[in-house]
This record gives sequence, C-alpha cells and structure tokens, in this order.
Amino acid sequence: MQTLKIIKIGGNIINDEKSLALFLDGFAQLASPKILVHGGGKLATELASQMNVGVKMIDGRRITNSNTLDIITMVYAGKINKNIVAKLQAKNCNTIGFSGADGNTIQAVKRPVKTVDYGFVGDIKKVNTTSIQVLLDHDITPVFCAITHDENGQLLNTNADTIASALAIAFANTYAVELYYCFEKNGVLQDINNEDSVIENINTESYQTLLKNGVISDGMLPKLNNCFYAIAHQVQKVCIGKPAMLFNETQKHTTIQK
Amino acid sequence: MQTLKIIKIGGNIINDEKSLALFLDGFAQLASPKILVHGGGKLATELASQMNVGVKMIDGRRITNSNTLDIITMVYAGKINKNIVAKLQAKNCNTIGFSGADGNTIQAVKRPVKTVDYGFVGDIKKVNTTSIQVLLDHDITPVFCAITHDENGQLLNTNADTIASALAIAFANTYAVELYYCFEKNGVLQDINNEDSVIENINTESYQTLLKNGVISDGMLPKLNNCFYAIAHQVQKVCIGKPAMLFNETQKHTTIQK
Repeated sequence: MQTLKIIKIGGNIINDEKSLALFLDGFAQLASPKILVHGGGKLATELASQMNVGVKMIDGRRITNSNTLDIITMVYAGKINKNIVAKLQAKNCNTIGFSGADGNTIQAVKRPVKTVDYGFVGDIKKVNTTSIQVLLDHDITPVFCAITHDENGQLLNTNADTIASALAIAFANTYAVELYYCFEKNGVLQDINNEDSVIENINTESYQTLLKNGVISDGMLPKLNNCFYAIAHQVQKVCIGKPAMLFNETQKHTTIQK
Repeated sequence: MQTLKIIKIGGNIINDEKSLALFLDGFAQLASPKILVHGGGKLATELASQMNVGVKMIDGRRITNSNTLDIITMVYAGKINKNIVAKLQAKNCNTIGFSGADGNTIQAVKRPVKTVDYGFVGDIKKVNTTSIQVLLDHDITPVFCAITHDENGQLLNTNADTIASALAIAFANTYAVELYYCFEKNGVLQDINNEDSVIENINTESYQTLLKNGVISDGMLPKLNNCFYAIAHQVQKVCIGKPAMLFNETQKHTTIQK
C-alpha cells in the first residue's frame, strides 16, 4: 500500500509566523499523498475580544454559541486556511482548503446536551473520502480546518486532533496511513519540565501505567486518546512531537504503539 | 459541447437569508456542471465596523489594506462561503468552496499604484482550470468567493463579477458556457425607477447608444464591461437579471449579444 501522511499542526505553530513558514517549507517538500489539518490558535480568541464576544470555557472547552461559531468559521476556514493554501501554492504544493462541509467530507452531530450545553460543537459521525480521494489521485493536497457540518446546513466546531484521527482511520483501508501530531514539545514527556525526558514509545499497556502515575497531564489526555483510537483502527504509525520529527530522522518524538 | 452554467450572486442575495435560501434551492436543482460565484455584501463592512477598522472608499471602490484583506478573507472565504457550501450539501448538491488560491485556480497581480493605491486588490492574470475540471468531471460544484492570489503567498481582493467572467472565458473552449449575473433588478433598465423597462437585448452597437444617452448608470458600467468582455471571448450566453431568470423562462432579463 502507498503511504499517506496526515499531519496536524496546532495553535502554537499557527500563532508564530516564523514557525509556520518553516513548517510549510518542509510540508511542501514531503512526498504526496498528504493531508494537512490545522487548529486555530489564539486568533479566534483575539477576534472574539475585538468583537466583544465573550469566550466561555467549561472544563477547558470552548462553548460555541452562534457568534462564536461565526468567529471560528471566519478565522479557521477563512483567514488561517486560505493563507496556508496561498503560502503552499507559492511553494508549488497544490492545495485546496477544506472544511468538513466541503465535498460533504466530515459529517457530524451536534453534541447532545447532558450536563453541559457545548453549543455548536460537532461529534464526528462519518468521514466520506470520495472527494478527497479524487484530489489525492490528482496530486492535490487537502488542507483541513477544524469545522464539520451536520448535513442539514449547520456548520459545527470540531476538535482538530479528532478530525486528523478520523481522516486517518477513514483512509486506513486504502493507504498505509501515518498520523503525526505536531506541537511545541518533543513528545510526551516523563517530566513536563524536562524536554529531554521524551517517552519514545507508548503502548496500550504502558499508557495505563503512565495514567496511573499521573504522568499524562489533562491537556494531553484527549490527544493521546485520539492516538490510541487511530492505532486501534488500522492506522499504521502515530507520532507526537515537534514538526522537525517529519523532516529529521534524529528528532526525538513519541511513537504510539498497540 | 456540454453546457456549463456559471452563476454570480451579489450582496443583496447574500444579505437576505430568505432570498439566499430561495436561490440555493433553485441552484441545487440546476443540472450540472455548474459553478457558483458569490460576492460579499454588507457583512464585511459590518465586521470592519465591529473591529473598528475604517472602510476607505475612493471612487466607490474599497481600498484594501492588510486589515481589510483579513476581514474580507474571513467573511467571504470563511463565513459566507462555508455556510453556502453547508447549505448546498443539505440539498444534496456536492460542493467545494474555492478562493483563487485553492487549486492555484485564479492567479492575479496586485494592482499597480498609479494615482490611487488600492492596496491588496488583484487584477486577474490567469485562470488555471485543471483542479476545477477534475471536480466538474466528478459532479462536484465549485463555489467561488471573490479572493485571488499572486502565486507568492499573498491573497488579493478581486471583484466577484470579474471572477465570474474570467472563469466563463477560461472554460469557453471546453463547454458551451452560460454566464448569469444575478442581482436585485429585472435586468438593465431603460428607466432605473421602472422595473418593467427591462432592455431585453443589448449588443455592442446598442450599448454605445445607451452609454451616450446616459442610460447605463455608473454602478452598471463595470458589470456590463465584464459581460461584453465575456461575450467577445466565446462565452455563448450572458444574462443579467433576478435569480428567477434561471428557473423560470417567463422571467424578464437582459441578454448581452455580440
């Protein structure tokens, strides 16, 4: 099977012009097929403050009311996505920007209200690979922002890590999929204050021990859950670390194993 | 040759939820292949005011500084484009949202500064049909917002009428292209205050007379120039009128002829 690289970059890369430029330089040179998934970063929060739209967080999660959804759509699908697309075109990497509504690619359901009403937040129901496959077959690289839709005309806000993982799983029967979560650290760290304490391999068993010992911080939990979910669903390789892990073999990072 | 319909809708349809819903209902049912091009409407001006970004107009044209370009990118490529895409998906019309950067489709040059510096405004240099053709071949409908790029990573603000005309011309060798400019009036009016005074046909010769007699208002001039440019470049049919002209044969409108 041909290899498909799915790469997710987070806010810290998006927020820093220099980091983003460096990453896009490397990404443009990676062999196709490949898919980029990007988060939003602080731009959405900045715009919300400029527009006097309050940001409401519950347990570290953004509550997405209708104004917030507009802001997210404008920032993620508009400003960030189109600028990344234009910058990759300048590096001869032919890209098309995607939300989950485009090509009916990612269908989600509005998260049901239990104790908390998260608003217009979407839990992924199905990934439809047809349109993306057409592009990949023509050497066009999709660039995804973290927005999905409910097939009834409603856009929804969905976590970018989850989108990357869902795309990886959806293509796992067609390609040898490699999923890379790029963030600001060298990987999962044994000691959060020591960048050299990278845990190079985590499997289902050692993950339980790390959880028990409190090594995995709250922020890392959903990311690692996405990783293990992908690796359990035929995704061949799942890595967490700095973007350099993509371009430099000696760059330390964490690899997730079954 | 197969017919390709390229339809441009302006701000007045975008601004009114009911008009937009009605238009999208009809558009979804039109036979493929088809391309939608949309303008921006008042949302960009509203956001600029919320963000305290001044709108600077010279001779009725918006000066696009870096903040204004961000706003336009967020509103046109983000909020408006993705909501149209999601709404068309709900009507089983498979669409992908495009700026001119996506698929490297519309390459433009930043307008040279002569007496006025328009800022990040792009004059179209070339339309590259490759990526769009791939989608049309798979029954996917591109939905274009009025943004182009310079192939060096810079997004540019380009008039939506001009984008529609440039796309029509680019496909004129491959399809029998029909170009429809939808706006709030029944067509080009002999008397601007009388909706029944539609001039049903205008050709190059009668256009000169209308210009001489001052029948064509300033606002209509660039639109009509785009129409005549298209019809002079092998576009088979160019019409101006209300969206109803697309769905109802008895709806009066203006047809542009050589």
